[in-house]
Amino acid sequence: MERSIKVIGTGIYIPKTVVTAEELDKKLSLPSGWTLKKSGVRVRHFITNETASKMGAKAAVQAVENAGIRLEDIDCIISGSGTMEQPIPCNAALIQKELSLEESGIPCFDINTTCLSFVKGFDLASYLIDSGRYKTILIVSSEISSIGLNWKQKESAVLFGDGAAAVVVQKPRKEESSHILTARMETYSVGASHSEIPGGGTKIHPREHAHLSEEHFLFQMNGQAIFRLSSRLLPAFMEKLFAGTNITMNALKAVIPHQASGMALRILQKKLNIPDAVFINNIENYGNTIAASIPIALHEAIEQGRIKRGDLVMLIGTSAGLSIGGVIFEY
Amino acid sequence: MERSIKVIGTGIYIPKTVVTAEELDKKLSLPSGWTLKKSGVRVRHFITNETASKMGAKAAVQAVENAGIRLEDIDCIISGSGTMEQPIPCNAALIQKELSLEESGIPCFDINTTCLSFVKGFDLASYLIDSGRYKTILIVSSEISSIGLNWKQKESAVLFGDGAAAVVVQKPRKEESSHILTARMETYSVGASHSEIPGGGTKIHPREHAHLSEEHFLFQMNGQAIFRLSSRLLPAFMEKLFAGTNITMNALKAVIPHQASGMALRILQKKLNIPDAVFINNIENYGNTIAASIPIALHEAIEQGRIKRGDLVMLIGTSAGLSIGGVIFEY
Repeated sequence: MERSIKVIGTGIYIPKTVVTAEELDKKLSLPSGWTLKKSGVRVRHFITNETASKMGAKAAVQAVENAGIRLEDIDCIISGSGTMEQPIPCNAALIQKELSLEESGIPCFDINTTCLSFVKGFDLASYLIDSGRYKTILIVSSEISSIGLNWKQKESAVLFGDGAAAVVVQKPRKEESSHILTARMETYSVGASHSEIPGGGTKIHPREHAHLSEEHFLFQMNGQAIFRLSSRLLPAFMEKLFAGTNITMNALKAVIPHQASGMALRILQKKLNIPDAVFINNIENYGNTIAASIPIALHEAIEQGRIKRGDLVMLIGTSAGLSIGGVIFEY
Repeated sequence: MERSIKVIGTGIYIPKTVVTAEELDKKLSLPSGWTLKKSGVRVRHFITNETASKMGAKAAVQAVENAGIRLEDIDCIISGSGTMEQPIPCNAALIQKELSLEESGIPCFDINTTCLSFVKGFDLASYLIDSGRYKTILIVSSEISSIGLNWKQKESAVLFGDGAAAVVVQKPRKEESSHILTARMETYSVGASHSEIPGGGTKIHPREHAHLSEEHFLFQMNGQAIFRLSSRLLPAFMEKLFAGTNITMNALKAVIPHQASGMALRILQKKLNIPDAVFINNIENYGNTIAASIPIALHEAIEQGRIKRGDLVMLIGTSAGLSIGGVIFEY
């Protein structure tokens, strides 16, 4: 079932501190060139004193400006992030506060399915927009990965960066046709431990940090296992994603994958046979910014004129869970 | 806009370990009777070795049995919990795994707005059901509060309990009229720090536990401030909640409030002038089980015959954020 939804503005916030592949080679005592070759990331950005809500608010202000609306026009704030700023309350409420909307009453909630949180938030927002429940929804993905990286697990640690993106959506006007054509998500928890942070929630309280190895509270990833599982799932998933539409891959003007790793992007592009001209790949500039990676790439593709009104765009990726998800929409 | 949704089954899981008000009086060196008087909670249950996903899975199995369906009929799993079992991946994926559905592909995601997470999950699920996106959604709220309580802050620590609830929803058959009449949520982040756990997320990593006081990683609550803010907001909120309907409070056969505290329940009942016969209050048996409190009470009210098909039911509460939210639905 198609749902009307129009992206009316996007914005990003990238922390100032630049960390180059060469710096990581030195920091981790690796041969020169190792980090870039393994990750495909030339530069990632790490926070200094930013919080996720501060980054998210800055991205939101830019998105609202680009949309030509005022902050007060927003009537729903969704955080679509894979990381929590605090265990309580939810990210969206903290972002509302940073936007000085603390007396606005704008409803705030979080949607979390790790790296696919933005995609799921956009998908769910379409029902709320199409039905008229809300008129102007702000979706924010703001991620601080740098605090939880395991530098002993070099292959994963060198992939990640911090960053935030925000997207404002509304119902299109009558003469406009922006909508979601199809959306699909599948979760295979057989891969739940392929990428995880075991400790810090209710299973292993932070107080256990004194007794357990630090690894329990850091990101762990089995890249090979993720690769095998997602390779097995991808063909059938893509078939089902397109099944409800009357288009094929050729109709897409842009494919925006989750920027998981340089290798993951190369394999995805090859497997799906996506031409360079439509494949949006910015991992060398930001690294894997968890759920923010897709909306950051969306923002850049729009800014660079690679996506125009009427174009069909695919968002696609995998996330911890393990989940695989995608949306095809008309911009 | 009304949305068709039918609760076809509910289930709960309550941990075996019983903690009485008298035991807490002794543990906290308080005069006999203090805990019960302050909290209204005679008995709360704390986990021994349960995880949130194990509790959620047990509640889900009961809900599926009560619904007369099989686990394999579920085509979407939503976790509506205020606590995370692990920072990564999301709760819903971990619950899928505990249900031995790890190769099912059933999509899993979390919705979090602390104590209102179930209410928001139910509200959002109605769009997915009404539109036909999913046929059978499992919504699970599973909460372990006991691990994060601050026993130096006695007034809040004595309120909480652990527990889980699950609800299965489908589209009603043609001859049935189960639906959501109205739903509303408002967030006022001016109260974001009135109840919070500051540490454990990306703002304060668990490694800081060694350097900061333990309070940073425990639940903090300013009950007076929450009370003042929610009392100010409630009247206008209720008016707007009912505005889109042609019913008044008198039409409700059950009002299921978030079981925040004995005092909060007394004040809510008095302010809204709700007769005992329709007011569902089970806090003395479970305490405040965060987002699980409303679906646990819903499950009991159905089991006890206090809610019958065709009855109008209100779910209502406040949560950290600070948010206020409510749904009115026909069971």
